[in-house]
Amino acid sequence: MKRQPGSTEKTKNRRVDREIQDYEILKEILDESLVCHVGFVDENNQPFVLPMGFARFEDSILLHGSTGSRLMRRISSGIPICIEVTLLDGLVLAKSSFESSMNYRSVVIFGKGEIIEGEQKDFLLNKLTDHLAPGRSSEIRKSTKKELAATLLVSVPLIETSVKIRTGPPKEAESDLDSQVWSGQVPFRLVAQNPIPSDEISKNLNLPKSVNQLKQIYN
Amino acid sequence: MKRQPGSTEKTKNRRVDREIQDYEILKEILDESLVCHVGFVDENNQPFVLPMGFARFEDSILLHGSTGSRLMRRISSGIPICIEVTLLDGLVLAKSSFESSMNYRSVVIFGKGEIIEGEQKDFLLNKLTDHLAPGRSSEIRKSTKKELAATLLVSVPLIETSVKIRTGPPKEAESDLDSQVWSGQVPFRLVAQNPIPSDEISKNLNLPKSVNQLKQIYN
Repeated sequence: MKRQPGSTEKTKNRRVDREIQDYEILKEILDESLVCHVGFVDENNQPFVLPMGFARFEDSILLHGSTGSRLMRRISSGIPICIEVTLLDGLVLAKSSFESSMNYRSVVIFGKGEIIEGEQKDFLLNKLTDHLAPGRSSEIRKSTKKELAATLLVSVPLIETSVKIRTGPPKEAESDLDSQVWSGQVPFRLVAQNPIPSDEISKNLNLPKSVNQLKQIYN
Repeated sequence: MKRQPGSTEKTKNRRVDREIQDYEILKEILDESLVCHVGFVDENNQPFVLPMGFARFEDSILLHGSTGSRLMRRISSGIPICIEVTLLDGLVLAKSSFESSMNYRSVVIFGKGEIIEGEQKDFLLNKLTDHLAPGRSSEIRKSTKKELAATLLVSVPLIETSVKIRTGPPKEAESDLDSQVWSGQVPFRLVAQNPIPSDEISKNLNLPKSVNQLKQIYN
């Protein structure tokens, strides 16, 4: 199966300078992101975009939500959906408004959701937990049958995708190159603050491995 | 005009505990966000979601892009669009997968884009520049006629909106309350790193006010 980003009419990038066709980079961006933005249309062709937690596992995106959620049921019904993920890496301040920009890494995925049931479900829900906080699923109890039944798990294959990346300093209009105006980048980083234990039990426990790892990743 | 978030059938929130109906909070979330996620359908009813820079000005969202962008032209054509913005405030690690979650503030806007031309255009494009970096537009030269002509500026009114917020510690299943497992929140923050000047001129200049302010906002 061809998994090269940007290889279809819909995903072909018009800005060739920002186009990436490397499937490994696609996976890296997804694995570093915590929130995705899921687009779909309702029965009246009204577009919706919803933020959702997610995880990549192998060559698919996993989404989950309550079986009671009308929108989740819609997403899982097999209609065309679009999933977008963006990491904001910084602001790019040029010597003109026109050339000012942002540095980012973004992914767009076109596909259809497929409901996951059966034995795999518990295993894949743990992947979602571990995407939030690496290793967390092994620190907590297993999900109950009731919890599993109340959760809708959907998989979307990474087949039709595109990747767009901007890095580096501003481009400038040639007539601005001598302009005595500061220009440059302001890089951004997502940083974890001090963990806040939620109860007396947690206050008296050491931080678990998963939380220590989060502090290292987002430091 | 009624501007209360969540006041229409489409925007009514099913999770009443996370529903916010305060227009001022809606504006705060938008003003703190740098990237929005714009959903729309193409000619074949295929949903698209694209990340875009934006600014709120008064009671509208401003979007801009190249007049040469096919997708930007589509967004500005008056079709229904959906704009979503999410600030990730932290991870919520419960004593179970089922109750684990994220803290966030998110906004969804339903509307249609209207192209802005004429005298207002330059003024409103400066609002986009200043949303990126407060005060930046007064530090740089004015846009040229050619630059203005190459830019499509679109306004989307804040009429049909919804706001969803989750804050605070994890909720726990009652049977987990005595569980000897660490649970709590890991708050996140977007932090600006050291600015990187892009040329010799900038290396020899003091940081401009806008960049110093960015360092204060994202510290």
